[in-house]
Amino acid sequence: MDLLFTNCTVLPMTGERESSPFEGAVGVVGNRLALVSGDGERIGRFRREHPALREIDASGKVLMPGLINTHCHVAMTLQRGYADDLSLMEWLHEHIWPFEAQQTPDEIVTGAELGIVEMLLGGVTSFVDMYWHENRIAEAVRRLGIRAMLGASYLDTNWDAFVEDLERMQRAAAGCERIRLAVAPHAPYSCSAESIVRGKELARTRGLHFMTHIAETEEELRIVAERYGGATPVAHLDALGVLDERTIGAHCIHVGEEDIRILAERGVAVSHNVQSNMKIASGIAPVAQMLRAGVCCTLGTDGCCSNNDLDMWEEMRTASFLQKVATMDPCALPAYEVLRMATAEGARALGLAGELGVIREGALADFILIDRRKPHLTPTYDLAANLVYCGKAADVDTVVVDGRVVVEGRTVVGLDLDALCARVRHTAESIAARARAAEK
Amino acid sequence: MDLLFTNCTVLPMTGERESSPFEGAVGVVGNRLALVSGDGERIGRFRREHPALREIDASGKVLMPGLINTHCHVAMTLQRGYADDLSLMEWLHEHIWPFEAQQTPDEIVTGAELGIVEMLLGGVTSFVDMYWHENRIAEAVRRLGIRAMLGASYLDTNWDAFVEDLERMQRAAAGCERIRLAVAPHAPYSCSAESIVRGKELARTRGLHFMTHIAETEEELRIVAERYGGATPVAHLDALGVLDERTIGAHCIHVGEEDIRILAERGVAVSHNVQSNMKIASGIAPVAQMLRAGVCCTLGTDGCCSNNDLDMWEEMRTASFLQKVATMDPCALPAYEVLRMATAEGARALGLAGELGVIREGALADFILIDRRKPHLTPTYDLAANLVYCGKAADVDTVVVDGRVVVEGRTVVGLDLDALCARVRHTAESIAARARAAEK
Repeated sequence: MDLLFTNCTVLPMTGERESSPFEGAVGVVGNRLALVSGDGERIGRFRREHPALREIDASGKVLMPGLINTHCHVAMTLQRGYADDLSLMEWLHEHIWPFEAQQTPDEIVTGAELGIVEMLLGGVTSFVDMYWHENRIAEAVRRLGIRAMLGASYLDTNWDAFVEDLERMQRAAAGCERIRLAVAPHAPYSCSAESIVRGKELARTRGLHFMTHIAETEEELRIVAERYGGATPVAHLDALGVLDERTIGAHCIHVGEEDIRILAERGVAVSHNVQSNMKIASGIAPVAQMLRAGVCCTLGTDGCCSNNDLDMWEEMRTASFLQKVATMDPCALPAYEVLRMATAEGARALGLAGELGVIREGALADFILIDRRKPHLTPTYDLAANLVYCGKAADVDTVVVDGRVVVEGRTVVGLDLDALCARVRHTAESIAARARAAEK
Repeated sequence: MDLLFTNCTVLPMTGERESSPFEGAVGVVGNRLALVSGDGERIGRFRREHPALREIDASGKVLMPGLINTHCHVAMTLQRGYADDLSLMEWLHEHIWPFEAQQTPDEIVTGAELGIVEMLLGGVTSFVDMYWHENRIAEAVRRLGIRAMLGASYLDTNWDAFVEDLERMQRAAAGCERIRLAVAPHAPYSCSAESIVRGKELARTRGLHFMTHIAETEEELRIVAERYGGATPVAHLDALGVLDERTIGAHCIHVGEEDIRILAERGVAVSHNVQSNMKIASGIAPVAQMLRAGVCCTLGTDGCCSNNDLDMWEEMRTASFLQKVATMDPCALPAYEVLRMATAEGARALGLAGELGVIREGALADFILIDRRKPHLTPTYDLAANLVYCGKAADVDTVVVDGRVVVEGRTVVGLDLDALCARVRHTAESIAARARAAEK
């Protein structure tokens, strides 16, 4: 059904440095924005030309692009709070990996459903995922109406299984334009040069994106340097010829000037995961410096076992605040720039620059409505600053993805949320019990 | 009216290292907790002994102490987002101060009302304030039902006005046990040694608390060292004899080992304001180190012009995350410790250790109920970690202060929120217009 949202404040996010909000209306035909206007006559004409449309009064709300989470392991909601405040090795070896070893594909779907619902309720309309059994996660994406780029993960040990996964994913995603696929080697320290090159070749042959974790820890730098003649992870990947505009590099924390030059030149999209990087003490990515060098910087939440939620509003705010204090410059990473990272630049990472992450006629109809009638959003002098520094996931009232209303009045349309939460609690308890039993 | 909350998960926060949650009930008689129990028989007896009580089914909710915000300038909600992403001097001289110069006392009350409402909705039951016209802010505190310690601010230039302020505050707070008063010199670099000592003497004479900003910027350290023979702000204040257990030091960012020893020995309560410190690039306070040294560390939001909201959930989370990445130790400032900073330790800063910030029989009835039936709080392995790393202000369902239900179902009881927000918008626009006109 065609849609018309009226009486809202539209924040188009189309400008590079700023984007003036205006009072107006947004109309949707099919899965595209057909009207973005403050002109009463044009709005009236749109209404007459689409007599069957559903009109929604959006008074008191901001209409802006949906947020784009460019790095996630969505099924890890099952491990939310399972192991916190531990050293990296104890955390991975004694908690995270033993838990993951017990998960069945059905359980992964349950975790993914919860994560997708959490993201939708918080205004995320697209996410990039990287995990096992992504063909099953594709089912949850289809059902729940979010847009996703799903990356089939692999290590050196499971190439054949990975190729089969990819086939299954292609079948699972067939006919659903909201899903795009990617090839996702785990990281340059955990995958051999050969398997990374092989993955990129496969991605190029099939027209898929390519993504990997890059320079997340100092330990990774040490291992890569030792194996590849002193190269940094970025230089190593570049020497393999795998970095280009269809590559998403998650983290990119420990990158030097030359690495940054490479990332900018190759057009790699960096996914900055600030809360995860802080929580597990990975380090502080030089985002302000990367932006100055022209790197495409975007935002991601990472998985729930290192964050512990999928809240892009907190990622925006914390990304800005951390850059300011890390550089001791209060002007670093200003509000509008960080909002662009979460919208227009996120779209660029997905290969959908101009199609997504902006409110303009012809673009895909992925957008959110923010209820401004909240004390913490009052008063408003600068709308972008207001949203980035004060906006919360719970302020998201309505979410439209691909022209369909998936959240309305802070509720996921057609979902029994209590039943899903109960199912997740039961699943999590069951896996944890099995993991404990297996450790004995 | 007496109250009984049943079927909830109680998180008492009474332990120093941990505090086991239990399923039970909490009863309130007058302004005190009269029952905290998981024992069905005791609950039944309480019900029979208080036949006129109001019983509230709190199924699916966590009952925990209300949060204590130990440093705020609550009326600054009027300047929320008024000037962001600027250098400190441009920010203060061209924006914040010209705006403040235009504010009338009535307008300050309007700003304070919005800030108090924002805090109540986010589960803050006590706040410490430091501003001008605190006698008027006391009116808002009385009306809205929050608990507060109000600090009368002064600089060297306005001692007489300050003493009058304090008299007016004492009259305004008379008979209201929720309000306590404090003497608040602005900072060791902006107040002379004489006026700081004079303020502390007055506080001691009248039995009041004492609070000031300490070691917030590197510039402050330079100024204090130059004036006082190389002393740090902490050493300077200590030499003046003003540091004791009834002192709250806001910020304490640039403190060395000897400063930390002094703060611990004197029993000063430090108010860590992490988001403000990050946003205006003041620096990173050594909180983990202060805690190890035995300093009483608490949390504050600071004012809305440097935060930009009054959300203690974000302060908790970001305080933990920033310590972890700043020390490169994922074990730094674990969840339970930061939750104590926001509750039991906050109470200690107010001189109410054991009386406030804990759920135990006999304590003041200041507590909150958190609705756990949210995707981002599912599943739960460790309740404290779940709340600190995933909890949001919007998860607060009910707030009780001094035995009275002030927020219920996410709504401030008896308040027309839309009217208040409209009044704030109008007030903010009017002040901003006058400030612009005066600058011409």
